[in-house]
Amino acid sequence: MNDRHRLPLEPIATPDRLLLGPGPSNAHPTVLAALARTPIGHLDPIYIELMGEVQELLRYAWQTDNRLTIPMSGTGSAAMEATLANTIEPGDKVLVAVKGYFGLRLVDMAQRYRAEVVTIERPWGEAFSLEELEAAMALHKPKILALVHAETSTGVCQPMEGIGDLCRQHDCLLLLDTVTSLGAVPVHLDAWGVDLAYSCSQKGLSCPPGLGPFTMGPRAEAKLAARSGKVPNWYLDVSLLNQYWGSNRVYHHTAPVNMNFGMREALRLLAEEGLEHAWARHRSNAERLWSGLERLGLELLVPQPLRLPTLTTVRIPEGVDGKAFSLHLLNRHGIEVGGGLGALAGSVWRIGLMGYNSRAENVDLLLNLLETELPAFQSGRTAVAVAAA
Amino acid sequence: MNDRHRLPLEPIATPDRLLLGPGPSNAHPTVLAALARTPIGHLDPIYIELMGEVQELLRYAWQTDNRLTIPMSGTGSAAMEATLANTIEPGDKVLVAVKGYFGLRLVDMAQRYRAEVVTIERPWGEAFSLEELEAAMALHKPKILALVHAETSTGVCQPMEGIGDLCRQHDCLLLLDTVTSLGAVPVHLDAWGVDLAYSCSQKGLSCPPGLGPFTMGPRAEAKLAARSGKVPNWYLDVSLLNQYWGSNRVYHHTAPVNMNFGMREALRLLAEEGLEHAWARHRSNAERLWSGLERLGLELLVPQPLRLPTLTTVRIPEGVDGKAFSLHLLNRHGIEVGGGLGALAGSVWRIGLMGYNSRAENVDLLLNLLETELPAFQSGRTAVAVAAA
Repeated sequence: MNDRHRLPLEPIATPDRLLLGPGPSNAHPTVLAALARTPIGHLDPIYIELMGEVQELLRYAWQTDNRLTIPMSGTGSAAMEATLANTIEPGDKVLVAVKGYFGLRLVDMAQRYRAEVVTIERPWGEAFSLEELEAAMALHKPKILALVHAETSTGVCQPMEGIGDLCRQHDCLLLLDTVTSLGAVPVHLDAWGVDLAYSCSQKGLSCPPGLGPFTMGPRAEAKLAARSGKVPNWYLDVSLLNQYWGSNRVYHHTAPVNMNFGMREALRLLAEEGLEHAWARHRSNAERLWSGLERLGLELLVPQPLRLPTLTTVRIPEGVDGKAFSLHLLNRHGIEVGGGLGALAGSVWRIGLMGYNSRAENVDLLLNLLETELPAFQSGRTAVAVAAA
Repeated sequence: MNDRHRLPLEPIATPDRLLLGPGPSNAHPTVLAALARTPIGHLDPIYIELMGEVQELLRYAWQTDNRLTIPMSGTGSAAMEATLANTIEPGDKVLVAVKGYFGLRLVDMAQRYRAEVVTIERPWGEAFSLEELEAAMALHKPKILALVHAETSTGVCQPMEGIGDLCRQHDCLLLLDTVTSLGAVPVHLDAWGVDLAYSCSQKGLSCPPGLGPFTMGPRAEAKLAARSGKVPNWYLDVSLLNQYWGSNRVYHHTAPVNMNFGMREALRLLAEEGLEHAWARHRSNAERLWSGLERLGLELLVPQPLRLPTLTTVRIPEGVDGKAFSLHLLNRHGIEVGGGLGALAGSVWRIGLMGYNSRAENVDLLLNLLETELPAFQSGRTAVAVAAA
């Protein structure tokens, strides 16, 4: 026997953090309780009933009637890949509107499915105008336009007015990333004419990470049905998954039943609160944060009309070691805020107020720490502060 | 607002089942408690330490020194697909030894990655001899031999003697499905010369479904490194995942942190018990089940030397409505046993004794129910028994 890797470990003892970064966010306590229930079989009639409830409440959260609305058995990135894997055939032209990190990820993924990918770009922190999208559609005539609604890397919320109509005029599918908007920021999939969307469990839905909500409308279903070959990804193949989630209940993979217990509870809480109320709560707590940050003299990356209520990007002030301050918040106060990603690495903090964590007391707690403890991290004083921590 | 899908639900109230089917199996209570801990960030130093612990204990469970040993953020099927997606290049010849449902799944998946797939087959319920594998290797000269160690659809355990040497002689990678053996049935990956393996969380490891342990040895790593193009699956791309699990800690996707809390606890319990003890426990409880079933006059599908201690296939006796009896066990006693899959649909029950559930009292409980309640389900009496239930 090889006992070299037989670590003698103590029982798990992770700390209770307050997660005010780009996600995961804290889960609601009753969601955590649901996760810890005894598993049941993935073909148990009681589980099958629960699957239907999860589907129905995801439709509510997204404001869609799409039949094919399911949580993928992976994180948001798996659901993202599912939208592309099922609908791209080799050589299809895909237009990706890139205004941050997750736009770049869509490009990488689409290329792996052998799409001919073309891009338009805006600087990180900005959004696209309808005119820009219109010009690119007319030029490239893509089969799919992929767009990020809530760009988690920048905190920008893309205005959606007119984009669905534009895609219909060009007989093009509209694919939308709603990872950081679902359940927290107004999303009206059907009214917007969105054909494919995905999200995650760990942000607006107040559930731990591990499931990737996915939805596909009739136009996207038709493209899937007309494929000449199999979907080049077995695990995410919606034509197979539909045999399990549809009335046939044909075994595909063993569902992550406990994560779905949590998802069902998270969606139940959202339906109980009501979408309009959840959206208004996120908006009002974000505004409380924004005005507090500005009062402290901190600068926000994104102009007010484009700001995402779930994620705020704050410029790290001149002379401050942003990483040292966020480590201080984590280690001294158990609070996580995020750093910048990609083009914004080192220049911003990302503050999330998502789902269960979107509460006035969390805003006030963080503003108070910024007011009282950030000054010690100004240039020249950083070393002392870190040593003291 | 569209409130058509706003289901008013009661809080979740799933029953406590005893899961004696092909999986999921019951999770250990402390694993469920770990699942319900407050999430922490996927780049939190405490989470990064936990990742290392999970990797190390997976190496112990598999008896391997493989550096690239990680839980995939999906179920066992995702880890299965990862072994193929990362190592197949279009046109590569892959030999799949098919002796049940999961061999067929390997064929389907490998074809999607544009392998030239060839198969050898044995009837469901049998295993391959080394001579058969040797002849097929000499004939086809594949780059990968894919084999199921523990075939969950039949209950057969494939003898592994000599197969690793054979693959090395032919400069071929050996890919092994250990979904129903890891943690419960002797597995010695390195001693057997296995290059790629995958498993699941919900069987021998006593954790709910949702993670797919994956491991890749140096020969498989070399094939991945020599690829001419990107892995055609972003989510399962080990070259990217290695940037996160390796020392660089580059963000790939938001890890399912709570599932990994559970996995860490499950593996901790396994290391505490010790592999040899866990293997012996599964063996002894399975033997108790086998002799009890035979005492009741029930016939086992698989000859004794090939039987899997984790999963026993029992022929449904002539004249018994197998589905009605398993529904009776579920609805009346809260016990799940599985039905047959594929070629064995309708002709066998599948009884699992896995991880936390491999205990003498579970064996005795089930044997007692078979003895006292199965006779009522013999031909002609079924309708009455079902009506009474």
